[in-house]
Order: sequence, then C-alpha cells, then structure tokens
Amino acid sequence: MGTDIVSPGELYTALKAGFPTKKMFFHGSAKSAEDVKFGIDSGVGHFVVDNVEELDRISAYAVEKKTVQKILLRVTPGIDPHTFEAVRTGQVDSKFGAAIETGQAMELTGYALGKPGVQLDGFHCHIGSQIFDCVPFTDAADIMLKFIADVRDKFGYKATILDLGGGMGVPYTEDDPKIDYAANIADIAKHIKNQCEKFGVEMPDIYMEPGRSIVAAAGVTLYTAESIKNIPGYKTYVAINGGMTDNPRYALYQSKYTVLVADRAGEPADFVCTVAGRCCESGDLIGKDMHIQKPQTGDTIAVLVTGAYCYAMASNYNRVCRAPIVLLRDGKDRLAVRRETYEDLTACDL
Amino acid sequence: MGTDIVSPGELYTALKAGFPTKKMFFHGSAKSAEDVKFGIDSGVGHFVVDNVEELDRISAYAVEKKTVQKILLRVTPGIDPHTFEAVRTGQVDSKFGAAIETGQAMELTGYALGKPGVQLDGFHCHIGSQIFDCVPFTDAADIMLKFIADVRDKFGYKATILDLGGGMGVPYTEDDPKIDYAANIADIAKHIKNQCEKFGVEMPDIYMEPGRSIVAAAGVTLYTAESIKNIPGYKTYVAINGGMTDNPRYALYQSKYTVLVADRAGEPADFVCTVAGRCCESGDLIGKDMHIQKPQTGDTIAVLVTGAYCYAMASNYNRVCRAPIVLLRDGKDRLAVRRETYEDLTACDL
Repeated sequence: MGTDIVSPGELYTALKAGFPTKKMFFHGSAKSAEDVKFGIDSGVGHFVVDNVEELDRISAYAVEKKTVQKILLRVTPGIDPHTFEAVRTGQVDSKFGAAIETGQAMELTGYALGKPGVQLDGFHCHIGSQIFDCVPFTDAADIMLKFIADVRDKFGYKATILDLGGGMGVPYTEDDPKIDYAANIADIAKHIKNQCEKFGVEMPDIYMEPGRSIVAAAGVTLYTAESIKNIPGYKTYVAINGGMTDNPRYALYQSKYTVLVADRAGEPADFVCTVAGRCCESGDLIGKDMHIQKPQTGDTIAVLVTGAYCYAMASNYNRVCRAPIVLLRDGKDRLAVRRETYEDLTACDL
Repeated sequence: MGTDIVSPGELYTALKAGFPTKKMFFHGSAKSAEDVKFGIDSGVGHFVVDNVEELDRISAYAVEKKTVQKILLRVTPGIDPHTFEAVRTGQVDSKFGAAIETGQAMELTGYALGKPGVQLDGFHCHIGSQIFDCVPFTDAADIMLKFIADVRDKFGYKATILDLGGGMGVPYTEDDPKIDYAANIADIAKHIKNQCEKFGVEMPDIYMEPGRSIVAAAGVTLYTAESIKNIPGYKTYVAINGGMTDNPRYALYQSKYTVLVADRAGEPADFVCTVAGRCCESGDLIGKDMHIQKPQTGDTIAVLVTGAYCYAMASNYNRVCRAPIVLLRDGKDRLAVRRETYEDLTACDL
C-alpha cells in the first residue's frame, strides 16, 4: 500500500503521520523547485512527473545531491470516462501529464531516459473520478500497455510499473450503482493479463489508487438544524450550522448526497426540503429538494458518505471554524482532529 | 460606516481588529443560540434577523440578560437582478429572510413588534451580487418602501432604517461595465426620496453595503508559472503554484478575471492559454482561453481584482498553505497576514 501526495503540505502531513516515504507517490502538475527539493530530501519513493520543467528540476537536484530519484511519468491516454468535467482527467486536453496521442508522452519518455539523476520505473495515468464501470479502466489499460510496448520497441526500455490511477466510484445516493470492488479489480487484472500477452509485454506491477472508495463511506457529517423555513408555493429550507465551508461539493459540482434526520431516522423520508448552509450566498447548499424525515429545529442532520473530499476541501469562508473529526470503532470514540478555535482563525493575522 | 458579520468567527475577528461593536450588523440564516449569546454579549449594534427561530433566541437571551437588542428584519422583496444563481438572494424562493409576497415578512414583523427584549429598527434586503445597473436597487427600494408603508398602516410602526444591502458590481475584465458608484448612489437616493413622498413615508436612514466594490480592485494575486504546456491541436496550460485553494471563484462560478504576466506587462497580450491551479482536479483553473503576454516558466502571473472573496474563501485543499497578504501604500509594504506554515496545517490533527 502506498499513498499519493500532491503538495509539500501533504508530504509534511504524511511525514508527521509516520507514513513510510518510500511508499509515497508525489503527484501534481505544478511542483516548484522547492517542492522537488523537499520531496527528494524526504526520500519520497516516486515522483509522478507531470511535465518537462519538473523533470529538469528533479534531475538537477538529484545530480547535485548525488542521488537517483525514481520516477513515473504521467501520461494522458485520451479517455473520456463520461464523468463530470471538473473531475475528468484522462482526456488529451488536460492540465495533467503528457498526451500519448500528440506524441508528447513518447517524447517525454525519451527525454527522461536520457536524464541523469532519475530512474524511470514506468507510467501513470488517471482518467477521472466517480467511475462506476470497468470499461474506462480496461480501455485505459489497453492504451497504456500499447504505449509500453511502443516505448519498448522505440527505446528498448521495459516499464516495471503501470499505475492506472484512481477513480472508482462511490455510491452517494441510492440512485448510484453499487460496485463490487473486488470483482471489478479481478476483471481488470484478468483483462490486463490477457492484453500483456497480446502485446508481448512482460506484466508490469499494476498499481491502482482506491482512495475515495476506501474512506468516503466511513464518514458522516453531523449538523444542527437551526431553522426550518417554509415558503408557501416555493420551498422549505432547513438551515444548518455548516455547509459549503465543510462540504463544498454541491456548490462546486452539484453533488448529490443522502441526508437523514439522525434523531428520526426510522420515520418515513417523505419531507421535501432544501438543506442550506450558513454562508452568505444562495449557492451554499447541501442539496435541493431532498426527501428526508420531517425535522424539528434543533434536530441533528446527518449527511452520509462524507469521508472523502470534505474536510480536505474545507475552508474558513465567513470565518466559520472547521469542524472536528471523531473516529468511532466498536462503540468507542476518539477525537482525531480537534475543532478549530477563533484563535486559530486569526493566527496568521498580524 | 458599519460592518457586516455572518458568523461568530467574523464577530471574533472584527472584535480583535477593534471594530466598534455598535456599528456591526450580524447577518446569516443559521445563527445558533450560542451565536446569539456571543453577539449580544459583545454588544453587536444590530442583528439582521433572518427567521422566527432566531428572533425567539434573541428575545429569550435579551430578556434573560435584562437588555434590549436592536434588530432589523431580513426581507426578500422578490427581485431577480439577473445575476448568477448562486449569488442571487432577493427572490422569493431564497434561503434568506422572509418574503413580502407570501405575507411572511408582514407576519414576522408583527411577531417581532410583540416580542420582549428586541427593538425593531427597520428592514434589510439583499438582492444579489455583481449588479451593474441601478434599476434592481430602485426596484427593491420601491418594494421595500411600499412594505414600510403597509407595515405602518397595519401596525402603526415607523421603520427608521432601510438597509438595501450590497451587490454593486465590480469590473473584473474589460468586458464588464464600468460603474460610476457616486452617480449611482445619487440616482438611487433621489429615487428613494421621490418614492417616500409618493408613499407618504418619512424617509428612513438608508444603508447600503458596498463591501466588494471597496476592496476587490485593491487586491492582486501573484503566482509563479511552474510549467507551460502546449498540447498541439488543443490548449496551452500555464500551471501556477496556487489556484482554487486561494481563489475558488472560477471553480464555483466560472468567474472571469484579467491576468497579466507581471514581468512582461508591457508586451502584447496575444498568447492564448488556460491558467491552471495546482490541485488534483481539472476544475482547478483561474480561467480558460485567456489572452495574456507570452510567459516563461518562472514568470510572475498576476491576477487582478482579487481583493474580495478570495482569501476569505481560501481552503487548504491538497494541504496547500494559504498565501500571505501584503499591503502596499506609497511604495511601502507591510505584511498584514503571514503565510501559513506546515505546522499551521497540522495544528488541529491529534
């Protein structure tokens, strides 16, 4: 098991948590010379190199330090996984990586193979998020394996790692498909094995990044209903003491969630309402026209499947303090992240 | 001059900055009993009451404390200012306030007038943001003055404050209209004076909230171009060391900005590119297909008019540290907000 980091702040956090640096993959499309230095000095296992400038920076610092940094190259296979635009990442027109279609991935590979201070271990791609089907992954694998075969033919170079990235969907509501992750992985693995034989490619180590699918469903966000406002002929708004500050996914992508009135979870979910956050804008919603149990002011409103991309994206918009995170196991609780205080909010103000 | 606060964190910040509490207006649609207590204990000048539950909370605590809290009532006039949905706030179907159209504003007024511990000073409305025209404001004033006249006729109550809220537009690009703020305010004032005569209403004190129009243009965000990536037949991406973490407005609303290569601001802006942030999603952009000077890696990229709704909305997504804010005046600089450190990022992690 490894972990993906995108910024020096994530690297710092992983270091502080004691995560083994050898198992870290340093992603991102805008790594500065300073980020590169921090990563190499920390002993990060692999840089997932996005672009030629980054490759130059890694090579220069590794040579200066008389070390060799292991890398993968981020490649865009030109796949459209039919997901939301903001989280679609594998198409040719992407801020990430080098495209196979334009010849730039091949060019970057040749450049990397000739660079001192770096050891190319293979390739990485990432096609998007919230993908419920195997086909985009097997399509990506086909393209990547063909690319690995082409690279071998052109440069005599044998990739030992193929990282197919993440993106396995997580059901947020009952309308989302359920995924049998183990069966999917088995199908993808079987497909890759066959394709390796077809392309005459020795099977590389296959990596995938199941991040969200591991942690999303483990999280539940609890709010208090501060006001319930019916506007006859229009809507009923349930105002909660949080919102886009702790979960900006509706504001960003109109993401859908399952919401329960925790105190009345056994009652029928036949009350139609819009759950609105506390910020000073109309876009601060958890969801529109949702069906939940009929709440009373003061009730606890639970939003399910918030273990991924919520706390990580949280802001202090309107100077709302970020909420604490409590871990639960076998009926025992442990505070993992404390609530922000007003003093935290103004800690940087001089 | 007063200030608007929406949360206890904003109240705390304003207190710490030494802003006089009497001139504070405590807004927001989800004020808890704790928030109400903090506001009253701090001596906040006016609560802008959003809903009946909040009114009950203010009354209960003020009575307990043997004080009288001054309030305005937030009313939705039912205006569509033709601005972006997420920042449209004055329509009947709004999470904010009580609607005139449904009779709920009148009902809330009657309720407030009968409540102990509160003193109703008038009414507040807010129709939206980025409004470049006077007409939505004068339309709102007409509706609000008619409402004030109706309230007087029904309850014999004379409002002394009419707060027309904010929303005056700020030009972010050359395509946005320029506003002569002083002339606009004069036009709105003249219109209101005439309408007061028409409705036989004694002219209340008129408040407006010009927040963004005061501070937005004063801010410029500076980034470093870490990579410049041309994808032949598609786009050129300029990758910067910031993005939606410090300015989520493109990700949220596809807001348009003016971008300059600061080192080459005198050169022609004929280079078409997409300015992309460092986060792990394709939606992290400052703008698509912008015309800027041709940058080199390492150049400083300046994004103009970022003095409002940028730092205030900033997050630590991907554990990116929030940038510092430097004040400039007469060629002198002063650090107002220091850069976040890695230690700040993990301060709440236990």
